[in-house]
Formats: sequence, structure tokens, C-alpha cells
Amino acid sequence: MAKEKKLVESITARDEDFAQWYTDVVREAKLCDYSGVKGCLNYLPNGYAIWENIQSNLDKRFKETGVENVYLPVLIPESLLQKEKDHIEGFAPEVAWVTHGGTEELQERFCIRPTSETLFCDVWSKTVQSYRDLPKVWNQWCSVLRWEKTTRPFLRSREFLWQEGHTIHATYEEAEERTLLMRDVYKNFVEEDLAIPLVTGKKTPSEKFAGAQDTYTIEALMHDGKALQSGTSHFFGNAFADAFDIKYSDKNNELHSVYETSWGLSTRIIGAIIMVHGDDSGLVLPPHIAPVQTRVVPIAQHKEGVLEKAEELLANLKAAGYRVEIDKSEKSPGWKFSEQEMLGIPTRIEIGPKDIENNQVVVVRRDTREKIVVSLEEITEKLTEILETIQKDMYRKAKAFLDSHIHTVLTMEDMVKTAQEETGFIKAMWCGDEACEETIKEQTGGVTSRCIPEEEEHLSDVCVCCGKPAKHMVYWGKAY
Amino acid sequence: MAKEKKLVESITARDEDFAQWYTDVVREAKLCDYSGVKGCLNYLPNGYAIWENIQSNLDKRFKETGVENVYLPVLIPESLLQKEKDHIEGFAPEVAWVTHGGTEELQERFCIRPTSETLFCDVWSKTVQSYRDLPKVWNQWCSVLRWEKTTRPFLRSREFLWQEGHTIHATYEEAEERTLLMRDVYKNFVEEDLAIPLVTGKKTPSEKFAGAQDTYTIEALMHDGKALQSGTSHFFGNAFADAFDIKYSDKNNELHSVYETSWGLSTRIIGAIIMVHGDDSGLVLPPHIAPVQTRVVPIAQHKEGVLEKAEELLANLKAAGYRVEIDKSEKSPGWKFSEQEMLGIPTRIEIGPKDIENNQVVVVRRDTREKIVVSLEEITEKLTEILETIQKDMYRKAKAFLDSHIHTVLTMEDMVKTAQEETGFIKAMWCGDEACEETIKEQTGGVTSRCIPEEEEHLSDVCVCCGKPAKHMVYWGKAY
Repeated sequence: MAKEKKLVESITARDEDFAQWYTDVVREAKLCDYSGVKGCLNYLPNGYAIWENIQSNLDKRFKETGVENVYLPVLIPESLLQKEKDHIEGFAPEVAWVTHGGTEELQERFCIRPTSETLFCDVWSKTVQSYRDLPKVWNQWCSVLRWEKTTRPFLRSREFLWQEGHTIHATYEEAEERTLLMRDVYKNFVEEDLAIPLVTGKKTPSEKFAGAQDTYTIEALMHDGKALQSGTSHFFGNAFADAFDIKYSDKNNELHSVYETSWGLSTRIIGAIIMVHGDDSGLVLPPHIAPVQTRVVPIAQHKEGVLEKAEELLANLKAAGYRVEIDKSEKSPGWKFSEQEMLGIPTRIEIGPKDIENNQVVVVRRDTREKIVVSLEEITEKLTEILETIQKDMYRKAKAFLDSHIHTVLTMEDMVKTAQEETGFIKAMWCGDEACEETIKEQTGGVTSRCIPEEEEHLSDVCVCCGKPAKHMVYWGKAY
Repeated sequence: MAKEKKLVESITARDEDFAQWYTDVVREAKLCDYSGVKGCLNYLPNGYAIWENIQSNLDKRFKETGVENVYLPVLIPESLLQKEKDHIEGFAPEVAWVTHGGTEELQERFCIRPTSETLFCDVWSKTVQSYRDLPKVWNQWCSVLRWEKTTRPFLRSREFLWQEGHTIHATYEEAEERTLLMRDVYKNFVEEDLAIPLVTGKKTPSEKFAGAQDTYTIEALMHDGKALQSGTSHFFGNAFADAFDIKYSDKNNELHSVYETSWGLSTRIIGAIIMVHGDDSGLVLPPHIAPVQTRVVPIAQHKEGVLEKAEELLANLKAAGYRVEIDKSEKSPGWKFSEQEMLGIPTRIEIGPKDIENNQVVVVRRDTREKIVVSLEEITEKLTEILETIQKDMYRKAKAFLDSHIHTVLTMEDMVKTAQEETGFIKAMWCGDEACEETIKEQTGGVTSRCIPEEEEHLSDVCVCCGKPAKHMVYWGKAY
């Protein structure tokens, strides 16, 4: 009993201390923990299973657009990392260096990949010759390492898991199209399968990826009103192609530089799932991505016939293709409910002697706690409908939260006041000058430009900060 | 035309120079290539797609036995690697050391994981307390790095992809059972899905994994008569548990050490697929694991209706669940055939004006080149049958080759003669003394003990080498 008691006591209320609540959920749902390697995480079975579902879902979407998977080395020679100047400036301060192999000191240092643009370019510079070799649309699922000072589960750690797509194309237009296509793939995946509504757009130059011409981002809003950059798609123009001398000959035998893109989404997104959907009872997982969609909980399981019927139900649900499990432990139903809720399993199915008598089960939704009585004959069919309703309702709820946390400001005074009194995104006009971004950040205590949306609204003619003519409408916000 | 010509000219005959043939197939089938990072490979789309199919197939088999996937850090602190003495002795000479993070020199060095026993033990030493926490049956798909001096595609490289399973158990028996279960999972997978027959058994002490009490192995025979260790399953007893202090309290609150296992299979197995099944026309992939199972090749595709009909066929096959593609390029049918054969695609389906007239297609098997005329109505059904026949025939052929390359010897003279004149496995009795293994290796020019099979035959009473009483029958062979 001591252990069970701990389970419930140890969760901080979400609105009391959001950061502590987050840490508690990650720990109690056993998603990941700090490893003995400073700054690195152990991705435990419950957390990794979410990542596996994200991987298989996203990988399918990638392949439908013609993506091929590859795997390039974990090490990058220092000379290779240095070929593109903006890129090395961005990454050199935060890479880990390998200096010895076995007992030998190496002639050239290698870094552990912080991202792999340089490796992909190196392969292509040696193998691409003709327009017939184009495009290359490659992706790899791997881990990368950046020597971060602070660690927060899923949100920031030295090593994290991600996919990094890299592509080269014959024309500017085709590469730009791919950049936007992958932003859309991310957007559709996150909205449809993770039930997380997004604000999307282009990064301002100061927030771009090191070496990119344009960075497109999808930004989600956490329950504490902070933004989380959840996936990015970069258009490089010819920058890497020129640095790495990747040229192709066209049909007339004329040489041209290729155009490049890259795009990535990481285990960070698991942090978004927790912080968008979770509540005071723990994790709430969207059915599309939940490793377990329903947990069968026998009630009064010592009574004759209950366990048999529960096992029969389990087998039927499994056969119907659901991801399902049963809790046959000796714990009381109340404790079993708490555990299922902590793990965020979208539904539980209660089945006890009375239910069996009435030829029914009780489905309890994790998101709303609504109880739905379903006949045993209909459950394998009906459960799909319930899970789909949960998926849609979770999105709708998060969308309503997002919409009610977007504020429009026209003056700097308003900007500062809104940043102090409200949470969420702030829409405001901007002149395009990095100095104004700096001023806003300072005066608001950390509000940064999140993105310039595809469809800009004309809020006013002038920059909210300096009053000079406005170039763009920008979404601003405090961010993770 | 120059490029097409190259395709065919560049393959060395398999029986003329096996090593060169292997390199040629890897290159021309575009499976992988040497990267700019010395000793590391680029796994290209055609090669990585095979690995993806291996992963999903094997992962499903793992999960059916209760395996949970996790991900632990790529870095191991030096002090952690040193905790188990045999283990550090085995691996220290071949790891890469990280000494700097960003611009700072680290207080303690980290190595890039060569294998992760120490990390898994570290997690468990901090989290396992009670018998209720056992067993842990964990696995991770990742890359590992060992500072090898030589590189051969898939067979030996500094970084390679693999899965490493690690488990802990309350009892000796349960851990031993898991060790054998995973050997069986490997064996069934490799025989059923890769169509590669095996010799299996226990390693002699000199060939065991660093730190293991017993190592079980699956050994395949390549077409050149050399063995390839294709997967291993290790039983550690309490060795790591004691070094890492992993103890659990039983129902009576008494403390015990846990028992541990680990098991791994790597991209090396792709080398086995190539070297067991490949021929002078290139790769031959088993249908169960082939990324593409059939390629539709339109004949006289400029003629009216041919391409339409071919596309219709492609769509039907796709809808029926086959992994299928079409070659609509401007190349001649002969060149298209050569390319499909080089890539090892198990079947091609030829469809031309005459076929359409007769409402039929011609299916050509990659393994036997047999042509099978099938009516258009029946093709979606019939193809499954053809692919299954290919799968079985490939296994049968490889099994006949294996069986005809197992030699029994009773004297050292015979051992040396057989090693000189024949290729394949040699069965001979052994006294259990490492000195005899050394003598055999020297006198035969490199024959080593491959394994002690589960069912030993009694060939004679005495060791083939020293004449002292024999303890075991051993499979010997030259190995990759």
C-alpha cells in the first residue's frame, strides 16, 4: 500500500507549479529519467513506445512523398564541419569532440553529429553528377548530440532522438516546394495524430537555423501559455551546395549548383503532448499515438467468471486490432484507475459481475472521465468511435485554448502589459529590424518572435516597437 | 549507353574472385559505400531498406516474447565502462574517446558505446529493488562504434547498426531460458525470413563475449565456404549484477543478485544475405525481406495501351499488398532486366503487346530465371504462391550447399588436409583446452572453433589435436 499511496500523493497540481507538475508526470508515468551520463536521458519503455508510434506514423507520411531512408556516420571530421561558415559558427560551441581512438591520439578530431547537413553534402558532392541523379530526398532516424548546459526531460538534453531529412534539387522552386511540403507533413501529423493545434510560419532571420536562407516552423502552445517550437523545415538555397561544390550537368551539359533543404522533428514533441493534454491525474495521450489505447480493468475479479470474461474481451479487442492490455493485479479498482489515468491510456473498460449480468461493459474516457455503457456485442465496433471522438475532442479543446490565448497588440505599452498579465501568443507588427526584436525581448522579460505566419493580418502600418513602417505581422511569445 | 554498359561489365564473376564480386555487388546494387569518415559506412537507400525490413520483422518477433524497447545514451563515462573487469579488457582497446564538450576539456572521458551492458546495469542498479521489478526485458535499436583497423561493407566497420537486448531475471533458470529463447528467435528469423540455414551452438571460452559466462551463436556458411557469426546471445550469470550491485529483495525480504543476459544482431547479416544468395548477376533477395518484391517491366512500352496496362497491373498489385514498382525508363528491356537482377528483386513481371493480347503476363524468377506465364486475372493471387516458392527454394538450395560443406575429421592430418582442400565447416572432437584451438588455428591457416552444437555427435573418444579424452564435438571453420 505504501507504494500505491506514493503514486497519488506525488503529483503536484498543474496550475500550482507547472514545471514541477511536468517533472512529476514524466517520472510517475515512467517516460524517461536522468541517466548517469550528465545531460543525457534514458528513454524508458513507456516513453520510447510513444516515440515508436510517432516514428512509424511520420515515416509512413514521409514515404508517401517519396522520402528514402538512409544512415550516415555518427562522427563528422572537424574539417567537414567547417566547410559552411554560418553552420560551423552556430554549432562549434556545442559539439562533443572525439580525440582518441583506442589508445591512439587522432590526427584530426571528430565531433559527434549535432545535425548532419555536412555529411549528406559530402556524399552528394562525390556522387551527384547529372540531372538524372536528382532529386535526392533522404532522411535518417538517429540521435544527435549538443553540449547543452541544462537538461529538462524531452525538452532539452545533450543527446536527443530525431529524424533529419535532407534533400537536393535541380531548381530553386522544387527545393522551396519540398521545404513547404515537409512543413505541411509536420503540421498535418501534429494536428491530426497528436491533436495539437499549431501556429505556423517563417522564422525571422535572427531565429533561423545556422546556414539556412529560410526556416519554417510549427509552434505549439503549452498549457502554461509558453510556445514550443515543434518541428522545422529549412531552405538553404545554394549555400551548402556552393560550400561543398555539389553541381549537376543539365540536359545541355551545363553545370549548375543544386538547391538544398533539411527538416527535423525530435523527441521534444513528446514534451508537447504532455504539456498540451496532461492534467492533474497525469498524462493524457491522443488515441492515434497511444501505445495502449484501452486497458481492461476487471471489477471484483475474485468472483467467479469475471477474469474469464475480461480475458475474453481482451482477446476480442486484440483480434479487432486495438492496442489493448489488462490489469489483473491484486490492487483495488481505485488504484488501478489512478494508474491507468497517470499513464494517459485514452480509455479503460470496466467489467464486473453486474456488467456481465447485463451483458455490458463501462468505457471510461481518460480525457473527460465520461462513462459510456456499451453492450458486449457492440464493444469491438463502438470502441473505434469512442477513440475517434476522444481524438477530435482533444484537438478541439486544445484549439479553443490556443484561440483564447492569442492577443493582438498595437503599441509597445500594450505589448509589455500583455506579456506581464497574459500568457500565450501575441500578434504584433514588426519593421524587420533585429534591434526591435532585442528591445521587445528585454522589455517583456523574454518574449521572442515565434514566426511570421503564411497569412499575415494587417494590424497597423507601423512596427509595434520603433514606429517605423511595418514589414510583417509576427507571432511573439515566451518559448521553451 | 556508356553508363548501362558499365553496369554489366563491372561485376567480377563470383567464383573467380569472391571478395571482389562481393564489393562489386555492394557497389552496383547501391547498398552502401565508404564515407568520408575513415572506417565508417554510408548506408544508402537500397541497403537501409533491407535493414528496415529486418528491423520490423525482428522487432515483431521480439515483442511477441515480451521485449520492451528503450533508448539509453550514446556515451559511457570511463568509470562506468571499467566496472566489470573482463568487459573493459575486451573493449577498452577499441573505443573512441570524447574528451571535449564545446570548448571545455571534460573532467572525465566518455567513450562512444561499443555495446551497452554497463549503461543498462547502471539504470537497473538505481531502480530495481524488489522481485516485483523483475524481469526487465529491454532492447534498443542503435549504432555502436568500435575502432576497427580494417573495413569491409556490412562485415566490419567502425560504426554499425544493430539491436542490443539486455535482460535481468530473478533466477538462473529464467535468465538461461531467455538466452536460449533469443538464440531461437534469431535462428527462426534467419532461417524463415532470410532463407539462410544455420549451424547453432555454444562458443568455446576463448570465443565468448567479454564478460559472458556462455555465448550462444548462430553461424551461417557463405558461398566461399567461410563462416559468418550472424547473431549472439549471452548469459552473464551474476557477473555484471555483482559488479554493479543490482540486487532485489524476494518475498521474504531476502536480498539476491539478479541474473543477466544480452543478445545482438547487426547489419552484418546483410553481408550474409549477399554472400549466401547472390550470383554472377548480382544480389538475390529473399521475398520475405526484399524491399521490392516485384518490378513491372513494360515491353515495347511505346506501343499503344502497354504503359496503361502496366500501370493498371502495378496498381492492382499494390492494392493487394505487394511491395512493387515499375520501370518506365527509356532503357531497353534487356538493360531493365539486368538492373532488376542486379538489385536482387525476387521477381519481375514482363508485360508487352502480345501478353496483353493473350490477357497474360510473364513472371520471371530472380533465383532460377524460370519464366511463368500467368493470366492477368490470376496474377494478384498467384504472385504470393510464386514468392513463397522462391523463399522456400532459396532456403533449400542454401541448405543443400551447407550440408555438402560439412566435413567430419578424426585426425589432425585430416583436419589440415580438409582445411587445405575443402571449404566449409569441419566437425571434430575437442578436449576443451584452448591450446588445442591455438594449434589447430596455426596448422590449418586460420580455422577456429565456431561452436559446440546443442546435439553433439560422438565422432571419437579423443581430441583431434592432442589425443587426450574429448569433451565436446565442435564445428570448426574459417570465418569472417
